[in-house]
Amino acid sequence: MEKVSKIMAKRGAKMVAAGGVKQAKWPAEAKLAELKRRLLEIGDLEAVSSVLSWDHATYMPQGGAAARARQGALLSRMRHERLVDPELGKLLDDLTPYAEGLPYDSDTASLIRVARRDFEKARKLPPAYVARASALRSASYDAWTRARPANDFAAMLPYLERSVDLAREYAGYFAPYDHVADPLIDDAEEGMTAATIIDLFSQLKTYLQPVAEAICAQADPRDDCLQGLFDEAAQIDFCLSVVKRFGYDLARGRIDKTHHPFCSKFSLGDVRITTRVYESRFGPALFAAMHEAGHAMYEQGVAPELEGTPLGSGASWGVHESQSRLWENLVGRGRPFWEYFYPLLRNAFPDQLTGVDIEAFYRAINKVRRSLIRTAADEVTYNLHIMMRFGLELELLDGRSRVADLPDAWRARMKADLGIAPADDRDGCLQDVHWYGGAAFGGGFQSYMIGNILGAQFYDAAVKAHPEIPDEIAQGAFGTLLGWLRAHLYRHGRKFAPAALVPLATGAPMSLAPYIAYLRKKYGEIYRLPGAGPEAQPPIRAPARF
Amino acid sequence: MEKVSKIMAKRGAKMVAAGGVKQAKWPAEAKLAELKRRLLEIGDLEAVSSVLSWDHATYMPQGGAAARARQGALLSRMRHERLVDPELGKLLDDLTPYAEGLPYDSDTASLIRVARRDFEKARKLPPAYVARASALRSASYDAWTRARPANDFAAMLPYLERSVDLAREYAGYFAPYDHVADPLIDDAEEGMTAATIIDLFSQLKTYLQPVAEAICAQADPRDDCLQGLFDEAAQIDFCLSVVKRFGYDLARGRIDKTHHPFCSKFSLGDVRITTRVYESRFGPALFAAMHEAGHAMYEQGVAPELEGTPLGSGASWGVHESQSRLWENLVGRGRPFWEYFYPLLRNAFPDQLTGVDIEAFYRAINKVRRSLIRTAADEVTYNLHIMMRFGLELELLDGRSRVADLPDAWRARMKADLGIAPADDRDGCLQDVHWYGGAAFGGGFQSYMIGNILGAQFYDAAVKAHPEIPDEIAQGAFGTLLGWLRAHLYRHGRKFAPAALVPLATGAPMSLAPYIAYLRKKYGEIYRLPGAGPEAQPPIRAPARF
Repeated sequence: MEKVSKIMAKRGAKMVAAGGVKQAKWPAEAKLAELKRRLLEIGDLEAVSSVLSWDHATYMPQGGAAARARQGALLSRMRHERLVDPELGKLLDDLTPYAEGLPYDSDTASLIRVARRDFEKARKLPPAYVARASALRSASYDAWTRARPANDFAAMLPYLERSVDLAREYAGYFAPYDHVADPLIDDAEEGMTAATIIDLFSQLKTYLQPVAEAICAQADPRDDCLQGLFDEAAQIDFCLSVVKRFGYDLARGRIDKTHHPFCSKFSLGDVRITTRVYESRFGPALFAAMHEAGHAMYEQGVAPELEGTPLGSGASWGVHESQSRLWENLVGRGRPFWEYFYPLLRNAFPDQLTGVDIEAFYRAINKVRRSLIRTAADEVTYNLHIMMRFGLELELLDGRSRVADLPDAWRARMKADLGIAPADDRDGCLQDVHWYGGAAFGGGFQSYMIGNILGAQFYDAAVKAHPEIPDEIAQGAFGTLLGWLRAHLYRHGRKFAPAALVPLATGAPMSLAPYIAYLRKKYGEIYRLPGAGPEAQPPIRAPARF
Repeated sequence: MEKVSKIMAKRGAKMVAAGGVKQAKWPAEAKLAELKRRLLEIGDLEAVSSVLSWDHATYMPQGGAAARARQGALLSRMRHERLVDPELGKLLDDLTPYAEGLPYDSDTASLIRVARRDFEKARKLPPAYVARASALRSASYDAWTRARPANDFAAMLPYLERSVDLAREYAGYFAPYDHVADPLIDDAEEGMTAATIIDLFSQLKTYLQPVAEAICAQADPRDDCLQGLFDEAAQIDFCLSVVKRFGYDLARGRIDKTHHPFCSKFSLGDVRITTRVYESRFGPALFAAMHEAGHAMYEQGVAPELEGTPLGSGASWGVHESQSRLWENLVGRGRPFWEYFYPLLRNAFPDQLTGVDIEAFYRAINKVRRSLIRTAADEVTYNLHIMMRFGLELELLDGRSRVADLPDAWRARMKADLGIAPADDRDGCLQDVHWYGGAAFGGGFQSYMIGNILGAQFYDAAVKAHPEIPDEIAQGAFGTLLGWLRAHLYRHGRKFAPAALVPLATGAPMSLAPYIAYLRKKYGEIYRLPGAGPEAQPPIRAPARF
C-alpha cells in the first residue's frame, strides 16, 4: 500500500507538472490510499486485540492472565498512538474538501467523515489520561471479580470513586455540554444526550410500570418445564441448528462456550459468537446464542467494500443491540418461531418436554416477574432495570449522589421501580460489570433500551414491507427478514449516525410506538390485560431530539 | 518501565555529580531496565503472533484466513522494526562492557549476550529481504496446500526455486562461511555447521542402515491391535491423563485438536499443546500429545526470572526436539511406561484391546518397517528420512542439484537409503511443509536427528543420577525424571548455546553413544538382533565440532 501511495504521489506530481484539472485528483486519491492504509492498520490492531480477548474468555488457562493483560495493553497503546498520529490528522484535513465534493452517502465521503470524527475524539484525550483510565479499568475489573462473590462493596468504593472522577474528567475534554454524561453517551450513540434519553425513559416508564404491576399481581406463571437435565452437547447442537437457520454464516463464524456470552469480530470473514450452557435449565444457552447471532449477522452483513475501514462495523451500540434483541426476542421468543422449532426441540429433548404443549412452553419462556438480576429479566421488566441504572449514573456523574451511598440508593430505587430490593450488594449494585471495568463509567446501559426500541421499529418496518415474514418464520424461513435487514441496515455499516440511519432504514425517525405496540400486543394477549390488541394505539410523542 | 528508566537515569546523573564508584553502575542499570522493556515488547509481539497462529490452526473458520494473514504480517513487521531498532543496538553496545564484568552464566550477562546475538543477526538482513521472504513463504505455503493433494510438483517448482535462491541470499548476508547452509543451520543450532552434521549423520547411518535391513528382512510385525474404532473423546481423555501425570501443568496449558500437532507458548503461564485424533487408529493422538507435552514441559520449566526476555524459551530447535522425543519415545514407547498405563488403556478401550497382552501391544507400537512418510516412521528408520532430506537440501543449496530434478533425486535416494520409493510426489518430495513455507528453506530437518541424539543423552544422564527412574515410570511416577530435567536443562532457558548447555546438563559434550546404545538395546531385544544388550559398546567418535 505504501508503494501504491508513493506511485500515486509521483503520478500526482506529474499531473501538476502537466497542468490541468486532474492535478487535484491524483494527490487526493494518493492521500486516500494512505489514509486507508493507516486505518487498516488501526483496524487490524483492534482485531488482534479482539482475538486476545476472545481467547481469554473461551480457552485461556488461568495461568495466562497476567501476560495476556500486558499484551493487550501493548496493542491498545500501539493502536492509540496510530489513532492520534498528527500525520493522520493532516491527511484528514487535506481530504475533507475532497470529501465535501462527493455525495454525503458515498463510501469515501462517509469514510473521511467518520474517520475524522474518531480522530477528533481520540486526540482530545491526553495520552496520560488514556493510560490512567486503562490501568484503572484493569485494576478495577480485577478487584470486582473478587469483590462481587465476597459481597464486598467497600473494596470497590475507591475504584468506583476514581472511575466516576475519570468519567467527569473525560467529559471535561469535550466541554461544553449540557449534562456531564453527554460526551459519554455520544460515544455510544452519536447525537444522543442525557435529555433525549430521560425523555424516552419517562414515556416508556409511564407505559411499563402499570403493565408490570398488573402482570405481577397475577398468579406466578409456571416455567418448570424449563428445569430438568438438558445435555450440554444437545443444547449446543440445538443452538447451532437455530442460528444457522437464521442465516448466521458458520463458514465465517463459530460458537464457543464462555461465562458471559459475547460476539467478537476479527474480520468480515470471522465473526464469532459464544454462549453459556446450564445443564439444569433450558433457555439461557439458546437465547444467548440467538442474541449473539443477531450481533454477528449484523457484522457479517456489512458491505464487503467497507471491510478494513472504520465503516466496517455496526452503526452504534444501540443499533447493534437492536439486532441482538430483534433476533432473540421479537423472533426467538415469538409464537411463529416456536411453531416451527418446538417440534424439533421436543425431538431433541423428548424426556424433558413430553406432555408440555407449545402454549405452556411459549408462556414459560415469556414469563414476566419481578427479579433482582438484569440479565435474567423478562422483556417487560428489563427496561426498568436499565432506567434505574441510568438514573443512578446521572446522579453520580453530576454530583447529586455520592458513590458511598450507592448501595442504599440502589435498594431504594429497586423498591420504588420494581417492587423488590436485593438482600445484598452482590445481587445489587455489584451485579453488573459495566461500572467496574467492562467499559468507561457511564454511557452504556441506555444502549440496551435503545436497542429494544429500535429492534421493534426495524422489525415493524420489515413486516410492513413484507407482511409474509411471520408466516415464513412459522415455517422456519428467515431469508426475507434477514434480506430486508441486510439491504436496509446491515450493509451500511457505520456510514451513518443513528439519527440518519433509522429514517433511511425505516422511513421514520426513532419512535417508541412500534416497541410499545409490540409489548402491548404480546403481553396483553399472554396475560389477558385490558387494552391489548392492535386497535389500542399508544400515546407516544417523538423524542425531543435524535 | 519508561518511568523507572528515567528515574534511574536521573539518579545516575546525581551519582555522577556526587562522584564515586557508583556513577557507572546506575546508568547501566537504567539502560538494562530500558533494554528489558524493549525486549519485553518484542517478546509480547511474538506471543501475540503465536496466539493468532494457534487460533488459525485450531478454531478459526475458513473465512478468517485472508485478514488473519494480513494481521500476522503486521505484527511480524512491528516486531522486526523493534528488533533492528538502532537504539536497541546502542543499548546493547553500551551494556556489553557491563555484561563482561558479570559472571558469564549470570542471567544479566546471558541476557545481554543473547540479545546482542539476536540483534546482530536481525540487522544483517535488509528489510526488503525480510518482506520478500515473508511474502514468498505465505504464497508458497498457500500454493503447497493445493499442490500436494493435486500431486503437482510443477506448480511448486517456481516457488521452490525462489526459496532456494532466497536461502542462498540469506546465507550471503552472513558470509564468510564454509558451506552455504551453515548460516541457516546456525540459526537453529548455534555453533553447528553442515560439516558437523554430515559427520554425525555418517556415523549414525553406519549403525542404522544394517539394523533397519536386518529388521525389515524379518516377517512384518503385527500391529492390527492398533486398528479399530477408538472414540475421539476417550482418546483425548487418555491423552490428558497421561500428559497430566507426566507433569504438564494444565493450569498453565491446555490441549486442543488440530491437523498438524504443535506446541505454542504465549507466556510462562500459558503453554498449549495440540494433537490430532483418528478414530480408526490408536496411537497418533497419544504419541503426538506426549511429543508436544515434552516441548511444553520444557517451556513451562524455564526459570520464571527469565520470563519476558529472549532467554525465556528453549535453547535451540535440536534441544527442544530432544525433549519431545524423550517424552514420546524414550518414556512413552518404553516398556516401563506401559507396565503402568497399559491396564488403564485396556480399561478405557476394553472392546478393542481384549485378548491383546502388553507384549503384543508394546511390539505393535514399536513396529519397525520401511515407509514413505517421515512423520509416521518408527524410531529406527526415522533418521534415514531426515538424513536424506538434509543431503538433498545441501545439494540444492550448494548447486550440485537443480530443483527441477528434485522428484527424481528423491526417489533415487529413498530407494538407496530406505529400500522403497514413492509412486508419486505427494508421498515424495511434496510431503513435508518445511521446504514450502513452514520455515526458511534449509536449516530445519537436522534438528529432529539432533533431538533424537540429545534426548537419549539427557535421559541417560538422568538415569545415571537416579537409577530408580525406570522403576518409578513403571509405577506411573515421573517426578524424579521431570525434576532432573528441570534442574539441569529446562530452567536455563536460552541462556546457553547447545555446545555449553549439553556438558552443563549431562557432564559430557554431545555424543551419539547413549542414543545408539538405546536403539541397540531396545530393538536388539524386540527383534532378537545379534550384538544387542548393554555389553556391546557402540564404536562412536565424538563429533568433529559442537
